[in-house]
Amino acid sequence: MTTDSDTMFTAAETEAMDLALAAALRGHRGANPLVGAAILGEDGRVLHVGHHRGAGTPHAEVDAIDQALDAGTDLTRCTMVVTLEPCNHTGRTGPCAEAVVEAGIPRLVHAVADPTENASGGAARLHAAGVQVHSGLRGERAEQLNHRWARAQGESRPYVTVKTAQTLDARIAAADGTSTWITNEESRAHAHGVRARVDAIVVGTTTVLTDDPRLTVRTPAGDQARGDQNTSSPLRVVMGHRDVPTAARVRGADGRFRHLRTHDPAVLLTELYEEGVRHVLVEGGATVVGAFLAADLADEVLVYQAPLILGAGRPSYPDLGIQTLSEALKFLPDESDGGSLRRLGSDVLWHLQPVPEARTPMT
Amino acid sequence: MTTDSDTMFTAAETEAMDLALAAALRGHRGANPLVGAAILGEDGRVLHVGHHRGAGTPHAEVDAIDQALDAGTDLTRCTMVVTLEPCNHTGRTGPCAEAVVEAGIPRLVHAVADPTENASGGAARLHAAGVQVHSGLRGERAEQLNHRWARAQGESRPYVTVKTAQTLDARIAAADGTSTWITNEESRAHAHGVRARVDAIVVGTTTVLTDDPRLTVRTPAGDQARGDQNTSSPLRVVMGHRDVPTAARVRGADGRFRHLRTHDPAVLLTELYEEGVRHVLVEGGATVVGAFLAADLADEVLVYQAPLILGAGRPSYPDLGIQTLSEALKFLPDESDGGSLRRLGSDVLWHLQPVPEARTPMT
Repeated sequence: MTTDSDTMFTAAETEAMDLALAAALRGHRGANPLVGAAILGEDGRVLHVGHHRGAGTPHAEVDAIDQALDAGTDLTRCTMVVTLEPCNHTGRTGPCAEAVVEAGIPRLVHAVADPTENASGGAARLHAAGVQVHSGLRGERAEQLNHRWARAQGESRPYVTVKTAQTLDARIAAADGTSTWITNEESRAHAHGVRARVDAIVVGTTTVLTDDPRLTVRTPAGDQARGDQNTSSPLRVVMGHRDVPTAARVRGADGRFRHLRTHDPAVLLTELYEEGVRHVLVEGGATVVGAFLAADLADEVLVYQAPLILGAGRPSYPDLGIQTLSEALKFLPDESDGGSLRRLGSDVLWHLQPVPEARTPMT
Repeated sequence: MTTDSDTMFTAAETEAMDLALAAALRGHRGANPLVGAAILGEDGRVLHVGHHRGAGTPHAEVDAIDQALDAGTDLTRCTMVVTLEPCNHTGRTGPCAEAVVEAGIPRLVHAVADPTENASGGAARLHAAGVQVHSGLRGERAEQLNHRWARAQGESRPYVTVKTAQTLDARIAAADGTSTWITNEESRAHAHGVRARVDAIVVGTTTVLTDDPRLTVRTPAGDQARGDQNTSSPLRVVMGHRDVPTAARVRGADGRFRHLRTHDPAVLLTELYEEGVRHVLVEGGATVVGAFLAADLADEVLVYQAPLILGAGRPSYPDLGIQTLSEALKFLPDESDGGSLRRLGSDVLWHLQPVPEARTPMT
């Protein structure tokens, strides 16, 4: 098992890795990293390309192997090219290293090592089983692909998705409090799909007291999207010091409710991580959203925006103490998950990644 | 010359009209309507499709005829299919009816009559010259295409484009007033292209006193975009009761400056129309933008939005007295001009059309 520079690999392997990287982007980031895998025939042609579709679904390697088995490809003459070291542990799915060995694949090239304690060791397992393993092809791009996921892993906290649903003038409710519905049916269905992929949904006490949300997943595909292992709904988490009324709908009846009496997102994330939560969806209100953004604890931001103007009402974001334009919170388009900008009927979904260096300059 | 229902036309003519309608959408709406034209060979094939690219550029009919002449097409055996009755007057360009006669085209099918006093009479002119003229094919769609332009014509007022450039949280300046630059270079270049196509740019006195804008067209293609006749820059118009300082840059040195001491958009539009202005660009601030939107005097809205959050500062839109969600100003995507949503680097440009029935219900 060696780590090599890009020049140590064949042109066919490099091409296969580029396809695997592109496929990885089609996945859903969150508790799991984006991963793509390609199967390369001995004639240098890419035969199959797989990717990971989110927590609980087959990993990229298994996705590609399944395609190969369906097509009758002789895997004992193929190379597997994958953007991340195959995992070596049984989570919601079995270890990928094992699947590669069982498939009889003689050679595997991966871009970067798996940084997580649980999952790493895949390359060693493969090597021990006699598979030729090489690492480092397109390593920089593969690292970039999952750098925010890797950071969450490194900091032992859940990956954080912040979501807002607002008008063109960034209102989440009219002056009289009405907010049903600002975004359209397509946007709401999409947002429920996002809920279905996370481990916990977080809102503030103001949202509970004002809107009395259920925070459940309400989409036909909801349960399916939870994958093969975890069919329970996401944990419903209320953040803040005020009491949550006994009758609040967020409490539900399944025991999957937590009230964390803190205003500090870092404290909340630590507690949730200890409970096994790996992907948190922050849904508001403005104070809670602002707290995560200001603390640089948002890994991605989803903004559903409807072509409406209210001119007054509850804002999406709080006063963050920003005085001048250069201090603005900055974001970049996130091209994973099908592109950074999506039309949902008349609504628009922005998929953004915070640019932390903009507010904490590197020295 | 007859007006017929769609069933009176051949399948080839219908197909040609659909192509012409699609081509029309590629134009720039504004002082002139969107128009497309197709040239149909005697074998029923569409040979050329033209469209109008904005005030001062060749009309759709001439665009299609030019293509035919370049290709050596024998126009004496062709039918011209056009989404609007050919004009019969000399504005920035010559009369299209004349161009069709000169080209020797024996038959012309148009979707709707030209409702404007100046331009109408084209069909009569063609008929008098011996051209077979038929009207009414896809009439409803062609009317829909230009209904807001037709409304402006009907009300004898300029066509109004409202433009804002804002953050994700709908701010046009930070708390300390800084606003240079909220949107990126691509957005600003695009906005200057829009300026280049209009007859007048309107801002409020607050904008003048706060930002001291020049309101000039600053793009390499600016002068070209003005077309072949009118190479002067757009009229710079300040709206509001407060004085415009003698040193204000908006005054310029070319005499193309007006200060209209009114808060009523209808009054302003009437005055500008009398001065020959046919397309107005409203650029802000919030009070002026709000006045046009609330009076239902915006024909289209362009929102340049940058992925920044300020959390405080000057808002894009004023308090409009809207209390509840159902009273919100509503907009629909405007699919003309290349689509209703455009990525400009990290920024997004929304092209919207107000939905007036949402606030003034038809009875």
